[in-house]
Parts: sequence; structure tokens; C-alpha cells
Amino acid sequence: MNMRIEEDCIGKLEIHDNVLYGINTVRAIENFPISTEKIHPLIVKGLIQIKKAAAQTNVAAGTLSKEKGHAIITACNELLLGDHADQFIVPAIQGGAGTSANMNVNEVIANLAMHHNPEIKIHPNDDVNQSQSTNDTFPTAGKMAMIHLLPKLLRQVNEMATTLSAKATVFAEVVKVGRTQMQDAVPTTLGNSFHAFHTVINRDIDRITYAAQALHTINLGGTAIGTGLNATDFYREHVVDYLNELTNDHLVQAEDLIDATQNCDSFVEFSNSLKSLAVDLIKIANDLRLLSSGPQAGLNEMILPAKQAGSSIMPGKINPVIPEVVNQAAFEVIGHDATVTMAAQAGQLELNAFEPIMFRDILQSEHFLTNAIQTLNQNCLADIVACADNCQQMVENSAITATVLAPILGYVTTTKIVKEAMKTGQSVKQLLIDQQLLPTEQVEQLFSNDRLLNRTTPTAHAIGTSK
Amino acid sequence: MNMRIEEDCIGKLEIHDNVLYGINTVRAIENFPISTEKIHPLIVKGLIQIKKAAAQTNVAAGTLSKEKGHAIITACNELLLGDHADQFIVPAIQGGAGTSANMNVNEVIANLAMHHNPEIKIHPNDDVNQSQSTNDTFPTAGKMAMIHLLPKLLRQVNEMATTLSAKATVFAEVVKVGRTQMQDAVPTTLGNSFHAFHTVINRDIDRITYAAQALHTINLGGTAIGTGLNATDFYREHVVDYLNELTNDHLVQAEDLIDATQNCDSFVEFSNSLKSLAVDLIKIANDLRLLSSGPQAGLNEMILPAKQAGSSIMPGKINPVIPEVVNQAAFEVIGHDATVTMAAQAGQLELNAFEPIMFRDILQSEHFLTNAIQTLNQNCLADIVACADNCQQMVENSAITATVLAPILGYVTTTKIVKEAMKTGQSVKQLLIDQQLLPTEQVEQLFSNDRLLNRTTPTAHAIGTSK
Amino acid sequence: MNMRIEEDCIGKLEIHDNVLYGINTVRAIENFPISTEKIHPLIVKGLIQIKKAAAQTNVAAGTLSKEKGHAIITACNELLLGDHADQFIVPAIQGGAGTSANMNVNEVIANLAMHHNPEIKIHPNDDVNQSQSTNDTFPTAGKMAMIHLLPKLLRQVNEMATTLSAKATVFAEVVKVGRTQMQDAVPTTLGNSFHAFHTVINRDIDRITYAAQALHTINLGGTAIGTGLNATDFYREHVVDYLNELTNDHLVQAEDLIDATQNCDSFVEFSNSLKSLAVDLIKIANDLRLLSSGPQAGLNEMILPAKQAGSSIMPGKINPVIPEVVNQAAFEVIGHDATVTMAAQAGQLELNAFEPIMFRDILQSEHFLTNAIQTLNQNCLADIVACADNCQQMVENSAITATVLAPILGYVTTTKIVKEAMKTGQSVKQLLIDQQLLPTEQVEQLFSNDRLLNRTTPTAHAIGTSK
Amino acid sequence: MNMRIEEDCIGKLEIHDNVLYGINTVRAIENFPISTEKIHPLIVKGLIQIKKAAAQTNVAAGTLSKEKGHAIITACNELLLGDHADQFIVPAIQGGAGTSANMNVNEVIANLAMHHNPEIKIHPNDDVNQSQSTNDTFPTAGKMAMIHLLPKLLRQVNEMATTLSAKATVFAEVVKVGRTQMQDAVPTTLGNSFHAFHTVINRDIDRITYAAQALHTINLGGTAIGTGLNATDFYREHVVDYLNELTNDHLVQAEDLIDATQNCDSFVEFSNSLKSLAVDLIKIANDLRLLSSGPQAGLNEMILPAKQAGSSIMPGKINPVIPEVVNQAAFEVIGHDATVTMAAQAGQLELNAFEPIMFRDILQSEHFLTNAIQTLNQNCLADIVACADNCQQMVENSAITATVLAPILGYVTTTKIVKEAMKTGQSVKQLLIDQQLLPTEQVEQLFSNDRLLNRTTPTAHAIGTSK
Repeated sequence: MNMRIEEDCIGKLEIHDNVLYGINTVRAIENFPISTEKIHPLIVKGLIQIKKAAAQTNVAAGTLSKEKGHAIITACNELLLGDHADQFIVPAIQGGAGTSANMNVNEVIANLAMHHNPEIKIHPNDDVNQSQSTNDTFPTAGKMAMIHLLPKLLRQVNEMATTLSAKATVFAEVVKVGRTQMQDAVPTTLGNSFHAFHTVINRDIDRITYAAQALHTINLGGTAIGTGLNATDFYREHVVDYLNELTNDHLVQAEDLIDATQNCDSFVEFSNSLKSLAVDLIKIANDLRLLSSGPQAGLNEMILPAKQAGSSIMPGKINPVIPEVVNQAAFEVIGHDATVTMAAQAGQLELNAFEPIMFRDILQSEHFLTNAIQTLNQNCLADIVACADNCQQMVENSAITATVLAPILGYVTTTKIVKEAMKTGQSVKQLLIDQQLLPTEQVEQLFSNDRLLNRTTPTAHAIGTSK
Repeated sequence: MNMRIEEDCIGKLEIHDNVLYGINTVRAIENFPISTEKIHPLIVKGLIQIKKAAAQTNVAAGTLSKEKGHAIITACNELLLGDHADQFIVPAIQGGAGTSANMNVNEVIANLAMHHNPEIKIHPNDDVNQSQSTNDTFPTAGKMAMIHLLPKLLRQVNEMATTLSAKATVFAEVVKVGRTQMQDAVPTTLGNSFHAFHTVINRDIDRITYAAQALHTINLGGTAIGTGLNATDFYREHVVDYLNELTNDHLVQAEDLIDATQNCDSFVEFSNSLKSLAVDLIKIANDLRLLSSGPQAGLNEMILPAKQAGSSIMPGKINPVIPEVVNQAAFEVIGHDATVTMAAQAGQLELNAFEPIMFRDILQSEHFLTNAIQTLNQNCLADIVACADNCQQMVENSAITATVLAPILGYVTTTKIVKEAMKTGQSVKQLLIDQQLLPTEQVEQLFSNDRLLNRTTPTAHAIGTSK
Repeated sequence: MNMRIEEDCIGKLEIHDNVLYGINTVRAIENFPISTEKIHPLIVKGLIQIKKAAAQTNVAAGTLSKEKGHAIITACNELLLGDHADQFIVPAIQGGAGTSANMNVNEVIANLAMHHNPEIKIHPNDDVNQSQSTNDTFPTAGKMAMIHLLPKLLRQVNEMATTLSAKATVFAEVVKVGRTQMQDAVPTTLGNSFHAFHTVINRDIDRITYAAQALHTINLGGTAIGTGLNATDFYREHVVDYLNELTNDHLVQAEDLIDATQNCDSFVEFSNSLKSLAVDLIKIANDLRLLSSGPQAGLNEMILPAKQAGSSIMPGKINPVIPEVVNQAAFEVIGHDATVTMAAQAGQLELNAFEPIMFRDILQSEHFLTNAIQTLNQNCLADIVACADNCQQMVENSAITATVLAPILGYVTTTKIVKEAMKTGQSVKQLLIDQQLLPTEQVEQLFSNDRLLNRTTPTAHAIGTSK
Repeated sequence: MNMRIEEDCIGKLEIHDNVLYGINTVRAIENFPISTEKIHPLIVKGLIQIKKAAAQTNVAAGTLSKEKGHAIITACNELLLGDHADQFIVPAIQGGAGTSANMNVNEVIANLAMHHNPEIKIHPNDDVNQSQSTNDTFPTAGKMAMIHLLPKLLRQVNEMATTLSAKATVFAEVVKVGRTQMQDAVPTTLGNSFHAFHTVINRDIDRITYAAQALHTINLGGTAIGTGLNATDFYREHVVDYLNELTNDHLVQAEDLIDATQNCDSFVEFSNSLKSLAVDLIKIANDLRLLSSGPQAGLNEMILPAKQAGSSIMPGKINPVIPEVVNQAAFEVIGHDATVTMAAQAGQLELNAFEPIMFRDILQSEHFLTNAIQTLNQNCLADIVACADNCQQMVENSAITATVLAPILGYVTTTKIVKEAMKTGQSVKQLLIDQQLLPTEQVEQLFSNDRLLNRTTPTAHAIGTSK
């Protein structure tokens, strides 16, 4: 195979002549063998879009010839169609604050442009990377990738919210024991439970959406450290507009480019919002697993759809495998947040060198949450069935329903009734009737589902009073 | 000493007759000896305010007699003046989801009211706690406490932001080497550095303010699990208004009280925002320690005010003790966020039993950040002095200033110049002049501070072009 | 009040003449107002013991006069009795890597010695701190404090292990449904469950004991950075022996004092072991809360002792408040581990400046775990009662007991039997007898507790075979 | 393509006839689409080895026919050669506690065995999985995988330790300024620094080795929940021996199989030890980046080998890319530890359903650390060059060397000398000579490298005394 010789400030290296990448890329493969995971394709896409926008701007600024600009733009267009995707091979976890990723893209574009236009000399740094630095292109591309994954994530979250709301309606009349601290409490409905899931998840949508806004502020135009050295004023003032035309991402240039180049707080903030969603998903998944426990020796208030034979040894066992995988994805997202936090606080002076691991972990968190929610919604939530009779039966057995008596009989007397009911195994209702503590009619009214759920208009009279 | 006998559902207990608290409080002391830390006084204050508002509402609703209501309100007023503060003794870290804290307050109010009005019988549960549950009062009081600490925190953050901005102005002409990945990069100014600190801290103010909004949504009126059982409609509809009159906290009742009773995402969200601030403080503290390193064998770009003899053995040593204590406070805040995350995801069904540790850690984080920022601002930032000559000298020695040549000479040629300058120990400027690579006048212009900082209007011509 | 003037390298300060501490201490109060928490008394105690051992060694080395030595030692003895404890007031969270704590002790000793011997001049640095640096005394004292708290912790863990083992015996015949993934699995006994708790907790004892060994290696004698500058060879070779005579802590001087001065891995390792214990406590506490859920609408397999009225609104409710407080203490320990990890990785070059927060958090974790385990053991575990009948009933209802048929009938056939039993609500045993699938006698034998628990000798014949 | 129909307790499914896996595997793909990552090949290998050992044991126990046993063993042997590796396709992150992974292996073995022996019927559950449960095979295979990766990791750590030790020797005479809290302290050598790195890394080897011991205790033989139901006594007593013959892993069966099935503390412990290594790597990487900062405007005490052009815009810039990628791998390991901690504490009752994410993250941590250390050792540490002249120069400029005077002149006088030296810019040595504070000869001796490094025998006389 033919080899070409490339040289950088470190020395010379032989490169296979049939590859589009160059010396920076090859060195990165050798230097950063942490895992086999390549840089995320959406970061590559973002970088190519930036290269294209930069070329357009540089031509307009008069610092890049139209000929070179055209060659670069054409190469970018070809790559944006997905061609030569196998040429972007630098590792996801890389030292150098993303320089290897940026140069991989610069090299591929330059070589592809020259391949199509052998007469023009396109330099990866002087031409493709003109007016740019890794320090402004790489975080911009990272943000573009995060933004790109967001609609998919939010669509899944929204669809789950819709399912939860629908289930809340379906289960509105499934009266069940409420439980606080794992102990029987006053009654609620399964509809209430699903509505609460729905409500909290809607707040997650708001939180993620708010946090993601900060990702739209980019430091493109700041070049190496935010001073914009080696870019024209024209470039700095126009490149984001060119980029927005290509992507429709509504990106905004930071007012303080020095700050925007060195601080990673927007990544922490976005990761925080994903962590919050993960926490809420764990709560929901745990509740689903708890309420569907059994089928005989558990709470058995609902049945999750059977999705997988549960055991290699126990025939007929069905496990809540979908909530379980959601738990695990959520645990990983929380772990990623710890990593992002570590990486963000480790930034020094004019740059944070640890953006690659932040981007890798945040993008993975977005993927994991999207996929976890999709399977939770489609393979579990949508087909949950309530065990309404069992739920109602437990309410009737529950001595804590006596709470409804407290305003009438007082806390102390009611406590005694509850204790006696528990001791004798009687229902509170029966005990009240048997002992003629209250008129039967009032007992019936008090222990009706509507009253226990506080659905009837509770006026002072209805409630009783401690006057 | 005289003893009185109290009884609860567990049994009887002797209580000193000279204390205002009762059996629930005494049991809590015995059950929860995790640390000597008492429940935060602001949670107590919030609970007392809630008790007062509840009494007012219950009287208006007709479920509490005016006489009892007056006695309760009078006792609350006395306690809100700070009297009998030593009666609120339940541990900060307690089981029971806050019931002990709530009952400690109920008991003290009841006993104090009866002390002043021996003829009336006030019951801690039936009267003081009327229409309430720990599950709605305790989280409400927790949120009130967090809200209460916020202005102090934000004032300190704002004052620090003001100092940072002022320093940015003072240091605007201190030209220094920029550094990316700890290696010399193109020049910047110390003013830029402080402006970037200022900018990121301003975002923290926005983030914390936004996150704190969620704390204003409370579940008061939901009683045990959010259904509002044992409260009148009137109470549920008016109690927050009464409370707002007392506190001016602009609290809002949640639309979904079931959700608001069980989900702790607003605490996670608020803790997240404090964690973000901690991360940014670590970055700033680290930069301060790095740039002031020396005095002889360090970067020595600035001098932090001397605040403490640095060593018991090395005479004359001064250490950056203020940033160091800021680092540690910030590490603790990050640890607290891990605890809050653990506690929030562990919530089950209709309640999260782990609110006490969340409240304790978040309130402590607010205190720590407030105090850390205050000492950082007053004892360090305000009196930082720049080593301007040293900074300028390092710029002149730095070969990476040659970056300004890249648009003119190209990346490859510039690389060679940098390498040669480094090898020979010459300044790039001198090398260019000696080797007559560019006209002396152009070299002078290129290597002026203004050009290196990109302050002159960079047009295509000024920058050069790779055409 | 009379004031004295003290001076350090920063300037002069007025100090109240009736206090034993001096200028370094006063500055620390002003500089580090993060919280009101003072340096841990056990760190102070360790420092005093070090000062005494150092004085003894220095006298023997000939670098400290016998007269001064005697005065210092006498002062130390007085302080070790607990006198003047109110003079050790520097904050627990302090900048300066512990210099303030070390100087607080140096100052108090010097002033106390001079108070008793007005004719001698004892200097805090030259005499009390002779041959020492904060960098070797402070981490040594920190380790001594952690070692000091260990027996209390281990005693509680051991007592809990004893209780768990005793309960395992008591509950050996309480046959109950096993549950994997919250779904009914093959039977077990409550004794098995408690034995498993016992076994894992025993491993925690081993882990903590092993990790604590590393705390016994100290860097005393290394002075500022481990080179031992300003200490005699005699001192370095003998000071640890003198210290061991005072404390019986079996401390060992590190071979590589440079390493021992800068690396905090032993603190991470010890914190890790506490974190492991916390994780296991959470698992146990969660299981206790789950198995005691109910009383009517939960698993109701055991009853935890009632320790606290569970609700301010729901009369008669009892909650698992002890496991709940254990959960919270454990969450805090995990958060502390995150803080320790942050602090340890932030060390730079010859020292880690963040030891104060590590010590504070580790010591607090030891306290929290000790107290949490004590209340768990005494207020909960010791008095747990099994609901044996309910447990047995659930076993008999559970279709998953059919697993015992799989070796005889095969996985596929057994699956069908389980599904049919679930559908019809019959017990598997009854179904087998009704359908005459197996001889009644064999069915009885197969579904005996002993067989289901695999207590009978399972030979090939007993089990069946898939041949 | 031909399809076959398979059925499980959920229903029927069409499976391509040319694949060896079956219905459980296909369902897992549909249910767990969290990421594209497949179950780790070493877990698959461990499961196959377990299946082989189980078949051998079952034949010996008389519960599996020799014919079936031979067919299973032959299939296992073929798979252990690496054939059909593409048939193990269940996701790494899966619900169901590993059942899908276990069944994927059971199915492939059964189908492969039947492919070779069409006349025999081998059932995935009844035959291949005989005497086993996912709950004992999956954690055993997970531990085997972790054990398998350990020698590679330890070899890299050991090689790095060797390099660090060699560098300590090479740099033994490079005298440099020590730094505590980023401020100049008494001198040290670069050799000392590398020796300290060496020492701490050796402790990591001990820690990891100790923690890994716990991985050798397995629960194989416990079947579903540790009672061993459906396995013969013979099997339980012999299967680990058979497995050890195959693997030489020195596995030991847990005494308490109930505990060993439900508790994941050994995973937490092992992850802890990896976290400790990560913390130490971060410290080392940070020191390398700090000491090599510059080249002109930094500490410049050493030069890391140039491995990558540092900037797309700044020609000639070289960055510490290898330490940077080590930092990031270490941050990820710390994040994984957070995930493992979350997952471990979430276990419930007889099983922890979240082993898949624990295994995935721990195995990834082992890979990341192995690879990060390899590149650190080979691409960085081995070729570090000291800037000895610069280091020595900084020592001579450093006023803190005056510490050596403190025992002679006292702390107060020495402080004044240091302050004057700093103010005037003189070296302390020169100042002493100029002001004739000490005899020139003594000054020369005191400020010799050997004395400053405390290499000369420090007796009472040499040191001075405060008598």
C-alpha cells in the first residue's frame, strides 16, 4: 500500500495514502487507547458544519479565496451526507481538549477537498481551521450534539407523560391504600399515583428545557482563549449567523468569550437536569416494582406486562425487567453526573482540558435516558393493569382509615380505636358499629370511598371540630 | 423535680414538668442520637408560622374555637420573638419524616398556650396540628427555611460579583500569558480573567434564583398524603394566603398535592444549583492559588492578601488560606449534593421519609457557601494585587505569541519559528528581526500588546490571509 | 480587660490577656467562619500528645533544655486531663492545611507553660513545635483521632452482629417466601435473612479493620515536606516510640516520608470502608422497612418495635423510624465519601491542603455510623418480632414453590402448572393432587417446608433428573 | 429465511433458524435497547465455563445423562475456542438481574449441542442450566470476568511503578523547590517526587489485590436464592472444584450462600479500590501537568515527551495530552464508583437486580485504568526529562530556604530575614553574608544542597537549639 509522509511539530509519520485523515489523527489513536469508543458522530457533524460556516465567513471576510472556500464547502457537504464516516476515528476519550477531534475533521476535509481538486492546496490548519481554534470549535460542536439529541429525549419524555396521564384517568377509580414510610396511610387512588408521576415528569421537561438553553450560547469566534486572535472582526461578528443558517440551532455568541471558553458550568447545569430526571425515574421505577410485587406474596396492586421469562430456574416467574433496566440506566446517569462534576471543577485558567469526557458522558446520558424512557413507556407503562379488587380489599382492611374519625373523636380516642381494631383483627368500621360509637349511617358515610378520599366537600360540619 | 405523665400510642413516659415539649420530643431524643445537632431553628420558625396561619384559618373555617385559636396564636407570637428557643431540641437527623420536629413544635405551642391559659385544654394534635400533617407542614417549613437563607447567600454572591467586576477593571491593562492545558497560550489580561470569574458567577446567581422558585410551591393543605383528608375546603383554599401574610414568602399551593407530597425533585434541583456554584468556586479558588503561586518559584502573577502565618516551621511563608477554605466548603457542598441525591431517589410511594437529611444538608450548604464567599470576597478578592511587571515579562518571553504570525506565514513556517525560538532561547520577536523574516516595523506592530490581545481592528489585511 | 500585643509575619494584633491561645488562633477565627464547628477534640488531644512526645524526644536529643521540656510536658499533662478545653477554638473547616489547629495547640501550651513558670520563655514555634511541622503533626493527629473512634464503632458493629446472629437463630423456623426482584421466589426462612445480614456485617468489620491499619502509618519526623529538615536524626528515629508510649496506638513511621506527607490515600481507603458499611446498612434498613410494611396492606412478615407515634394526623400509625434514621446517616456517610474523594484528588505536589475537611467528614462518619448502629441495634433489631403465621401462609399461597417440580416434570410443564395455578387461584399443591399429576404422598413430600427449603438431603433421586 | 417458533411463559415468537440463540435472547434485544453495548465477552466466557463445569458435575451426580453431558461439554469447548461469538448479543445493560445473559448462553449451548447431535434433545433450562440459577451463575461469571482482567491491570500498574522507581533514581540529584499549598517550601528533589508516586502506587497494588480476594468467593451451588433448591448435595459440594479445574481461578464457595446471593459488597469493595487508584492517578497526572507547565511562563521543572501537536491554531504548542487523558479515565472510574454504590445499596431481599450495571461499570473501569496507565507509562513517564538547571536556580532564589536558620536564629528573627530578602530581592544567602549575620562558611554549609535536603547527619549541634 502506498504511504505518504506527514510532519507535525513532533516529527514525521507514514500514513496510508488511502485514508483521508492525517498525522494528528494517527497520533491520537496511539496516544489515547482508553477504549474503542470513537468520538461521537454528532460532534463530528457539528465540527463539519462549523468548518463549512467558517469557510463561508472567511470567504466573505476576504481571508480565504473563493476557490479554496468552495473546495472546503463542497467537501463538507459531501461529508454531511454521511460519506467517509469511517474516517472520523479519534477516540471519544482523548487528551488535548478536543484538538485531535478538531484536527481529524480538518484533515479529512482538507484531503477530501484536495482529492476532488488536486490543483488546489488546502491546509488543515491555515485553511480549514482558519479563524478557529479547537477551543472554540470543539465546545461549540459538543453543545450542538447535545442540542441535537434533545428533541428525541424530550419526545420520549413527553410520550411517557402522555401515557402517565392517560393511566391516571384510567385508574382514577382504583381506590387503594396510601402508604407513607412503607406503612399504611389514608387511602388514595392509583390514578392519583400516576398523576403524581405525570406531574413530576412534566417538571423534568421544564428543567431540562431550561438547562438546555444555556447550551445555545457558544464561544465560536473566540479562537484560542476568547480574545479572538487570528480571526477578523467580520468573522467573529458573522460566523454564528452562517452557522445558524446551516443548522437552525438558534445559537448565540457569548458576550464574554473569555468566560465562555474556560467555564463548563453549562455542561454541569445540563447534566444536573438529566440527573434530576434520573432521580425521578428511579422513584417511579421503584414504585412500579413495589406495587406490582407478588403476585401472591406482595402488594399486588398492579400487574406489569410480562416481557421476559423471569428465571432460568423458577418456571413461570415474571420479573419487572423494564423498570429494572430503567433503574440501571438512571444509576449510570447519576454516575456520569459525578464524572462531569469532577471534570468541570478541574478546569484551569483559560481552558478546561476535560471537555471530551464531559461530552462523552452527557451524550451517553441523553441516549440512555431516551432509550430507557422509550422502553419504559412502550414495554411497561402503556400496558399496566390495576388489581382493583385487591386494592379495594386492602383499604377495607386498613385500620388507618380511622384517621377520618380524628376530627370527630379526637386523636387520643381514635388511637385507641385503631389499636383495638388491630388487636382484634376487626375492621374499624365494624368495630364502630358493633360498639355503637357512632351512628351506623354516619359510619357508612365516613368510611365511604368518597369520604376517605376527601372527595366530598369537607366543611367544618362534615369534618367535625375540636372546639 | 416535678414530673408529669404523658402517654402516646406506645405507652406512658415521665416528663419533667418544667419543659414545654412532650412525649414525642423525648422519644425522639432517645431514638435519634446520630449527632448533637438540633433541628435547624429556621425549620422551627417555619413550623411556628405555619401553626399560626393554620390556627387563623381553622378559626375562620369554623373548626377551631376563637378561644383556642387565640391561645395558639398568642403562644406562636411569643415563640416567634425567640422565647423558649431551647425547647426545640429534636435532632436534625431524625427518622419519621419530620414527625418529631412537627410534634416538638405542636407540644411546645400547646403547653405554652395552656401555661398562659390554664383554663383551656389545647391538644397538640387536635388543636395545634389541626388540618395539618407532618407531611405537609414539614416540607413547607423546610422550603421556608431554604428560602429564608437565600437572600444572605445571594447578597454575598452579588458582593463577590461586584468585587470581581471591579478587579476586572483595575486589572484591565495587566497583560499576561494565557494558558490552556497549563501550557503557555496567546496573551490575555488579568482583567479578562476576573471578568470571566464575574460572568460565570452571575450565571450562578441566575441558576440559584431559578431553582429556588420551585421551593415556593408548597403542599400545605394536602395533609397526610395530598388528598387533604381532615382539612376543610376552606382551610385548603386559604391557609397559604394566611401564611403569606405572615411571611411575605410568596408561597403557592401546588396544583397536584399528591405529587407535591411525595416528590423531592425541587430539593434536588436546588441542591444542583448550589453544586454548580460550588464547582465554579473551586475553579476560581484553584486559579487564584495557581496564579499566586510562588512567590519565587511559582507563577507569581498576583499576590493574595496575607491572612495567616503559613507555617509553624517555615518562617515567613504565606499560604492562600482563604481560597483553600473555599475549596473545602465547596467539596462539602458537592458531598451534600450526593447525599441529597441518594435521599431523594429513595422516596417511596406517597412520601419521602428522608426529608430531614435533605433539609439539614441543603441548609448547611447554603450556610457554608454564604460564609465561604463572604471570606473569599472580604479576606481575599478585595485586596488582590497584580504583579504586572512579571506578567508582562512572561509575555515577552513566550514563544507562543508567534501565533500572531500564522495567518501571515502559515502554520508550518510559524511552527518552525517557535521551535527555533525555544531552542535558542531567543524571543520570537528578536528572531524575526535578526533573520529579517518580516520588516521590523511590522514585527513591532504584531508583537504589540494591543495586537497580541486582538484589540486592534482585525481586518483581513491586518490578519493576513491564506489565499 | 487587659490586652497583650502579639505579632506574626503579617502584623500585630491585640489579644485578650486572659486567653491561652494567641495570634494564629485569633486570625483563624476571622478567616474561616464557614461554620461554628470547632476542630475535633480528638485532633486536639492527638496534637497535645504529639507535643508532649516531641518535647520528650527533643530533650533527649539535646535540642531542648530540660527546663523548657519539663514546662511543656507539664502543660501538656494538664491539658490532657481536659483542662482549658475551651481554648481550642479554631474552626474544623479551615484553610492552611491545619496550621491553625497546630498553632492553636502550640500557643496554648506555650502560654500555659509560661503561666506556670513565668521565668521561662517558651516559644510556640521554636520550643513547642520544635522538630515539627503542621504537615507531620496534623495528619498524625487526624489519624490518631480516627483510630481513637474506631473501637467504639467496631463495638457497636459487633454488638449488632451478635444481635443479628441471635435473631437468625430465633427466626430459624420462620418459613417465608423468598423474593428476587420483588417477585415471589422459592422459600427461605427469616433466620436465613438475618444470618445473611450477620454475614455481610462481619465482612464490614474485616474491611474497616483492614483499612484502619493504614492509618497507623504516620509521617511524624518528616517535618515540612518529609525531608525532616530541622529535626535531628535522633528525633526522627525516636519520636514515634515516645508517642506510642503515651498512646498505645502502635503507630509506625512511614518509610517514605515524602509520600506519607503528600498522599491522602489512607483517608480515601478508610472512608471507602465506611462507605461500604453504609451501603450494607441501607440494604438492611430497606429490607426491614419492606418486610415490616403494613400492618395490613403490606408484607407484614415482621413487626419492628414501636418507638415513636408515627403521625401527627393519623392516630395509631407506627413507622419504622429507626431504620429511617439509619438510612439517613448512611446517606450522609456516602456524601462524606464523595467529599473526601474530591479533597484527596485535589492534593498538589508536596502536600494536600484539604486535610481539615477530610478529617472532619471522616470523624463525623465514624460518629454517625456508631450512633446509627447503636440505635438500630438497641431500639430496633433486638426487639423485632416475626409474623410467622402470615409468613407460612404466603408460602402456601405462592405458586413459585412449583419450582421444586422442575427437575421432575421439566421447565416447560412446570411453567404451565404455575400459570394455571395463578389463573385459577388454586395452590399448586392442590392442583397437582386434583389433577393427579403426581402421587399425593410425593406432593406432600415435595411441598413440605423441609423440601422447599432444600433441607432434606437432595440426591439425584430426590431431585429428579432430566436424563 | 427459515424461521422456527419458540415459546416461553409469555408466548410464542418466530426466530431465524440460522441463529443459535433463542426466544429469551430475542426478547432481551427488544426490551433493553439502552445502548448498543453487548454483554462483556468475559462474562459470556465465564458463563460457558460454568455451564461446562455444571454439566460435568451433574453427570457425576447422576442427574444428567452422559450423552447429554457430553453434548453440552463439547458445545462449550467449541464456544470457548471463540466460535460463534456473534451469538452472544444480549445488551450489557439489561433488566432481569442477568437472566437474559444466562439464557443467551443456555440457548446457544443447547442449540449448538443439538446441531451437532440432532438425535438428542437438550433443553436450555432443564439440561444446560441444570442445578443452576441466573442468581448464582451470573454473579459468579461477573466475578470471573473481573478476576480475568486483573492481571493485565496489575501488570500495567507494576510496570508504571517500575518506571516511577527508575525515574526516582535518575532524578535523585535534581534539587528543586518543594511546594506546599502551591507556595514555595523547603527544597526536595525530583527523585523524591517520583519516589513518592512510586510508593503510593505500590499501596494501590496492595489495595486492589486485597479487594480482589473477595471476588474469589462465589455463590455457585446456591441456585435461586442460596438455599440450593434443585441442586443435589453432590453438585453443591463439587461444582466449584470442577470449575476451578477449568479456570485455575481458585474460587471458593461462600459459607453463607444466602448472603452471597443477595449482597454486593464485594463489588463495592473492589470498585472502591479502583476508585482509590483513580484518585492517586489524578494527583500524579495533576502534578505532572503542573511541574511541566510552561515552557516559558510556567514552572518548567520537567519536560513531558511531545506526543501530539497541541493546538490547531497555536503553532508549536505542546500539551500534556497523556496526563490529560489519564485524568479523564480516572474521573470516569470515580463516576462508575458512584453508579456501583447506587446500584449496590438498591438491592432488595434475596437478590440485587442491578448486577448488570455494576459488572459493566467495574469491567469498564478495569479496562480504562489498564489502558490509561499503559499510555501514561509508555507515552509519558518513561521519557520525562528534568530541567535540572531551572530547578536548581529556583532553589537558589527561594527565600523559604531560610527555614534552615530557624533552629539557630529562632522563628521570629528568621521571619524578618525572609521578609527582607523578599522585599529586596536578594537571596537569603547573600543577605546573611552581606549583613554578616552568620559566618560565611556556616552560611555556605547551611545553604548547601545537602543541608537543605537534610542529607547531612542532623545532630543537635548541626541543627542548632532553642535551649
